Amino acid sequence: MKLYSYWRSSSSWRVRWALETKGIEYDYEAVHLVEDGGHQHQDWYREKNPMEQVPLLEFEQDGEVTRIGQSMAIIEYLEDTQPDPSVWPDEPTDRAHARQLAEIVNSGIQPLQNPATFKRVENDKNKWCSHWIRQGLLAYQKLARQFGGHFSVGDRATTADACLIPQMYNARRFDLDMSEFPVLLEIEDRCSELRSFQKAHPSQQPDAQS
Amino acid sequence: MKLYSYWRSSSSWRVRWALETKGIEYDYEAVHLVEDGGHQHQDWYREKNPMEQVPLLEFEQDGEVTRIGQSMAIIEYLEDTQPDPSVWPDEPTDRAHARQLAEIVNSGIQPLQNPATFKRVENDKNKWCSHWIRQGLLAYQKLARQFGGHFSVGDRATTADACLIPQMYNARRFDLDMSEFPVLLEIEDRCSELRSFQKAHPSQQPDAQS
Repeated sequence: MKLYSYWRSSSSWRVRWALETKGIEYDYEAVHLVEDGGHQHQDWYREKNPMEQVPLLEFEQDGEVTRIGQSMAIIEYLEDTQPDPSVWPDEPTDRAHARQLAEIVNSGIQPLQNPATFKRVENDKNKWCSHWIRQGLLAYQKLARQFGGHFSVGDRATTADACLIPQMYNARRFDLDMSEFPVLLEIEDRCSELRSFQKAHPSQQPDAQS
Repeated sequence: MKLYSYWRSSSSWRVRWALETKGIEYDYEAVHLVEDGGHQHQDWYREKNPMEQVPLLEFEQDGEVTRIGQSMAIIEYLEDTQPDPSVWPDEPTDRAHARQLAEIVNSGIQPLQNPATFKRVENDKNKWCSHWIRQGLLAYQKLARQFGGHFSVGDRATTADACLIPQMYNARRFDLDMSEFPVLLEIEDRCSELRSFQKAHPSQQPDAQS
């Protein structure tokens, strides 16, 4: 399996976490999202993913190349085909709540604060991004307080946490005051102790820059 | 089961489609997203969903009220607990591709063109929204050409189609030139013949306005 990724891409980070959690070996193919206006917009990549985004999973199946784009679709595919260990909670309601939290980040925050979006915004970019991140994380925290144990939902790390951690990393890049999020900071501490989160971290990727 | 919905909300529309497809009876609770600055921002609703968005599914389970927000989380919950008939394709790769298309709309288009977003944009709002919708639908169409049969993925309507149809409805509200999307228009025609899509349409909801 090959993962097209960028070290700092929060959506790629989620998928790296799922691959690590499931113990799936993969080749890392870096796509530089900034250099030369972004390699994701080059013809060779656009052919693979017309959304011109990472991550993208590529593999051969029955002699044909299969590609899957969109982080949540990739994660659900991995869960479908290699269910153990699971990246979601066991019980259906818990699973729904973990997906709800994951979607707060995936559709409620991340698309509004990624560079493709904020480069088109005429407002103050930092203010624009901070607004969406803060609003989303406040809702996330309120729900995690209801759903949570040691992690966002229950006592095992799930895809919700894998969406949360990269979003908190981005929050700091936009100078958000993190003291508003004590519950999330505790979850982040616990995640940082897990090997899956350590291995998925941007700093550990082959294309990481200092 | 109670669904908090708004007739024109594209995310609510997807969930209505899934409920209809699975033949699940539900109570419709209208949340007016425009009146009085939006009822979704009122305390009584924010208590239920801190993201202040529809849809929201609410039901009693073991004597406790359970709530699930985020359209994709709700749809996956319905699929988890009442799998037949499925709202996704049967084969894992097809299922991944349907989820990829659904996410192009769910996280790649819809969040960027909803009123909560464009009311904060200082640019020309119509141009802003059209840009995201056009870009996303062009990618969707390219992939649907690869994945598709009579519908977005294969010959059965799936959640991908349930994301696409409301997005096309919104595209027209922003005066997008739909002649660029011949494949999507064909899919739309086929969906419009299905009872599930007819029943989920905004015009059929109790809070519909003319």
